[in-house]
Amino acid sequence: MKLATLRNGRPDGQLVVVSNDLARCVSAGRIAPNLQAAMDDWERAEPALEALAIQLDADEITGQVFDPKAAHAPLPRAYQWIDGSAYMSHLERVRSLKGSKDEELQSIRPLLYQGGSDSLLAATAPIVVPSDDLALDFEGEVGVIIGAVPMGATREQASSAIRLVTVLNDVSLRRLVVDDLQNGFGFFHAKPSTAFAPIAMTPASLGANWRDNRLHLPIRIEVNDKLYGQPNAGIGMHFDFADLIVEAARTRNLSAGTIIGGGTVSNPHDQTLPLKSDGIGFACIAEARTAEKAKYGRARTPFLKPGDQVRIRAVDAAGHSIFGDIEQSVFLLSD
Amino acid sequence: MKLATLRNGRPDGQLVVVSNDLARCVSAGRIAPNLQAAMDDWERAEPALEALAIQLDADEITGQVFDPKAAHAPLPRAYQWIDGSAYMSHLERVRSLKGSKDEELQSIRPLLYQGGSDSLLAATAPIVVPSDDLALDFEGEVGVIIGAVPMGATREQASSAIRLVTVLNDVSLRRLVVDDLQNGFGFFHAKPSTAFAPIAMTPASLGANWRDNRLHLPIRIEVNDKLYGQPNAGIGMHFDFADLIVEAARTRNLSAGTIIGGGTVSNPHDQTLPLKSDGIGFACIAEARTAEKAKYGRARTPFLKPGDQVRIRAVDAAGHSIFGDIEQSVFLLSD
Repeated sequence: MKLATLRNGRPDGQLVVVSNDLARCVSAGRIAPNLQAAMDDWERAEPALEALAIQLDADEITGQVFDPKAAHAPLPRAYQWIDGSAYMSHLERVRSLKGSKDEELQSIRPLLYQGGSDSLLAATAPIVVPSDDLALDFEGEVGVIIGAVPMGATREQASSAIRLVTVLNDVSLRRLVVDDLQNGFGFFHAKPSTAFAPIAMTPASLGANWRDNRLHLPIRIEVNDKLYGQPNAGIGMHFDFADLIVEAARTRNLSAGTIIGGGTVSNPHDQTLPLKSDGIGFACIAEARTAEKAKYGRARTPFLKPGDQVRIRAVDAAGHSIFGDIEQSVFLLSD
Repeated sequence: MKLATLRNGRPDGQLVVVSNDLARCVSAGRIAPNLQAAMDDWERAEPALEALAIQLDADEITGQVFDPKAAHAPLPRAYQWIDGSAYMSHLERVRSLKGSKDEELQSIRPLLYQGGSDSLLAATAPIVVPSDDLALDFEGEVGVIIGAVPMGATREQASSAIRLVTVLNDVSLRRLVVDDLQNGFGFFHAKPSTAFAPIAMTPASLGANWRDNRLHLPIRIEVNDKLYGQPNAGIGMHFDFADLIVEAARTRNLSAGTIIGGGTVSNPHDQTLPLKSDGIGFACIAEARTAEKAKYGRARTPFLKPGDQVRIRAVDAAGHSIFGDIEQSVFLLSD
């Protein structure tokens, strides 16, 4: 089952069920007005939404054309957005960045940060930055939307709370990371609004591509139509999503509709950009730059600047973008 | 105008207008089903809520008895909870704590952290901790609930976006602060769910007690009925709420219903506990302990343990608890 949220003039948008090929959609308004309402009442809503999805895919319902440009993020605003860092090769590559700490490189417990969730960007929303010297970067990630999880939850409770899976862009202002980390209060200014693919889908509907609490698909990244990376989200994910949820619930309950990210998808290798068509590459620029520093003594790949475009998508074996594309261009606030 | 949210079996509760003396309330359901809905449509909702408040206080409406124990936090879940650190004497006192950093002591720009907002506790909700060795502390704070603020907002925009004022308890697990700060990703486990006074009220209804974007009232703190502090929230607040909002909006928009805290209320002095009845004291235990370390060479005041009770309230010149009391007892998760 694939879900999306269409713009309707209200902050939470309108929940729709989308056909498996992303061509058509049908309003889920008679089941739940928006995705948060469905999350609040998932036991009742989920079977009804599944039934609607089956009818839509069987052409028993015509529905309407699904226009991803008319979609919000699946949750245009959420009560919680927690980002983890589950891929060790990402941590290893960025630990050398100024302002990062050795303690960041840890494999016992996953690192988590509390992200801003009041304003989550649509897949095609512009990335607006207050100035062009903030070392703007993207981070291609997999995220899950969960049901309520009690404090001290087990891995089994955590795993069974995973309701939906999606792909996201954790927009990062690398120059402000240093300030944020030195302040000691954690990421704040360095992590402006996060963007989401238009589609969130159930783990069951991912079939064999979802197993061991991980998405086993490459996350393809293009900047200005050039391939930067296609690391597989199922490879090198040291902590799975159940681990991340257990860690997040150590000292508190997690409410329904909480979004948890797995951190920048990253596979071990010693490549640099430009990437061959079968290369693995990187899901963020910071990693590409540290690989260049190691190989050439200096970073070559620039951070994003106004006018640049980044495209992020998970692709299946047939090459289909199953969650739809994140496709964002960069703008200055003053423009 | 005083607003509260009563339990009604739904996650967001039911919005009510409360009489000025906190004795009675009336449903605001015909104006907005819950406080977030009112925040989403404040220009329309606010005058209608004000009119209802006037009728209630003039006894034109009888309403029902207001039972603060039946109240949620004004926003039982919010899309954003940002906590600042606006009182320099708090930062000065806690900078000596293990794990804190010299850079925390800064007076140029306020420090902010992104708090978890998916589960905000009622004033009388228990504080549940996973173990009794986490150095459980409270932080008595003033908070504001704001309307939408655009990225790069001016102080004037920020100030005029302040919709409601309340009092809160930023529950803190001091032992986990060290881990969280060393990880470099910021507060996470050290800051479980925050609790709120039952009442949020408009700045205008605070009269002279709200000026210069600050609440000018003492925040009275009692632990097991012993006075720990009554610092004035209007004294020593180096950054006012407009400053905090401007800082929060440096790299992103803030959505309606965002809650911003001013940090632990703290006034400069060299007192220690036990406090005289006219003493100033402390709005958190960590400050009391560092004052004791400075004076006696060791901390005497213990952190909270299961069975302890903390009461936090803002009191006006007549001694009234104008937002209602936060009154929480500590429990172990396993109990």
